[in-house]
Amino acid sequence: MQKLVLIRHGESVFNKEDRFTGWEDVDLSADGLLQAQNAGKLLAENGYTFDIGFTSVLKRSIKTMHFVLEELDHLWIPVRKSWRLNERFYGALQGLNKAETIEKYGEEQVHKWRRDPHEHPPAITEQDKRFPGHYLRYNDLTYRELPLTENLSETMDRALPFWHEHIVPAIRDGKKVIICAHGNSLRALIQYIEHLSDEEVTKLEIPTATPWIYELDDHLDKINQYYLR
Amino acid sequence: MQKLVLIRHGESVFNKEDRFTGWEDVDLSADGLLQAQNAGKLLAENGYTFDIGFTSVLKRSIKTMHFVLEELDHLWIPVRKSWRLNERFYGALQGLNKAETIEKYGEEQVHKWRRDPHEHPPAITEQDKRFPGHYLRYNDLTYRELPLTENLSETMDRALPFWHEHIVPAIRDGKKVIICAHGNSLRALIQYIEHLSDEEVTKLEIPTATPWIYELDDHLDKINQYYLR
Repeated sequence: MQKLVLIRHGESVFNKEDRFTGWEDVDLSADGLLQAQNAGKLLAENGYTFDIGFTSVLKRSIKTMHFVLEELDHLWIPVRKSWRLNERFYGALQGLNKAETIEKYGEEQVHKWRRDPHEHPPAITEQDKRFPGHYLRYNDLTYRELPLTENLSETMDRALPFWHEHIVPAIRDGKKVIICAHGNSLRALIQYIEHLSDEEVTKLEIPTATPWIYELDDHLDKINQYYLR
Repeated sequence: MQKLVLIRHGESVFNKEDRFTGWEDVDLSADGLLQAQNAGKLLAENGYTFDIGFTSVLKRSIKTMHFVLEELDHLWIPVRKSWRLNERFYGALQGLNKAETIEKYGEEQVHKWRRDPHEHPPAITEQDKRFPGHYLRYNDLTYRELPLTENLSETMDRALPFWHEHIVPAIRDGKKVIICAHGNSLRALIQYIEHLSDEEVTKLEIPTATPWIYELDDHLDKINQYYLR
């Protein structure tokens, strides 16, 4: 039996302002920072140790990882970062207030954008300052990989190769793994691990900065799942 | 021409208390944190960008790297950590106050321990709680690699393989490299880059948290060196 720990980043400034975030690289809020430290303390009190960490290239997730590792006295472990663990790219909704967006487009449409795995939020153009092609950190992405919008299903499709290529080999190698990422990139991993349907996974709510513990068998299938809190 | 940036970590709690530190994993002081942020601001104001970072497995160096990268909005770059970039292992002197040690052993002996490349500080035993073999982060070291004491020359001998195996290939690959490490592991790299004699390198003083910039030619020989401050 092997354990795997997933953590969604602590509250961000945009979470606090009720805005769509996506790939907008906003910082943790003051509460988010405390949540991250608290997650680290919980793991430390329960005797967890880790050999390697995986996170996105967005600072709310990277900083959550750093605060968790600091509480564990584990800053020294390797931490691998990838855009494939980024939050869903929310297209033209990024930065917009959620309540205002509901007012403008109606509750039903916004719910679809958020939860229907095949519904695309309005796309941005390549001229938009939110286009990832403008940023150094996405220089290694192919043209096709740079999103203008993303539905949930596409988020999962680009997150899973990272699971197979980097995370699974680490677990198979006997390494204790911690993953710090985002609501939707974590949904992708959870869907895969638990064999969930699209419908089941979209209903899944993942609390922020709460260690989500898996006990996995030799096939990396779920034996057990629980939270530390 | 390629640039390479070296930074010695900000002031640590033991620097402030005038203690020998070595591999003791003490935190940055409040001033050290500000120094690290200031180094990051200087690099950002001067338009520096980086593709990869290298640091030790000691938190004063890792946290300096994190604070520098945060100011540069570069938390997303890969950061590789290795014990080979650790400070010199100071043996039984680790944790001792420098003034008290001078009083006990005499100024001449302490000066030798600090600066003579072939002089060993008193060794610890494997039963000592400071023995690295007791700590998870050194699990991958062979028995011969676990130090009981280290002279400057040995520090350089174990730092250089990391330069050749990991840092040189990154530079040759056209990557912009930042290294955040310690007085003596940086001395090893500087000695190699600048072809310094043992005598020259032991006289070298490296200021804390001050970006030390190299301009290197295609053979990674020094064209120019200066500080940002």
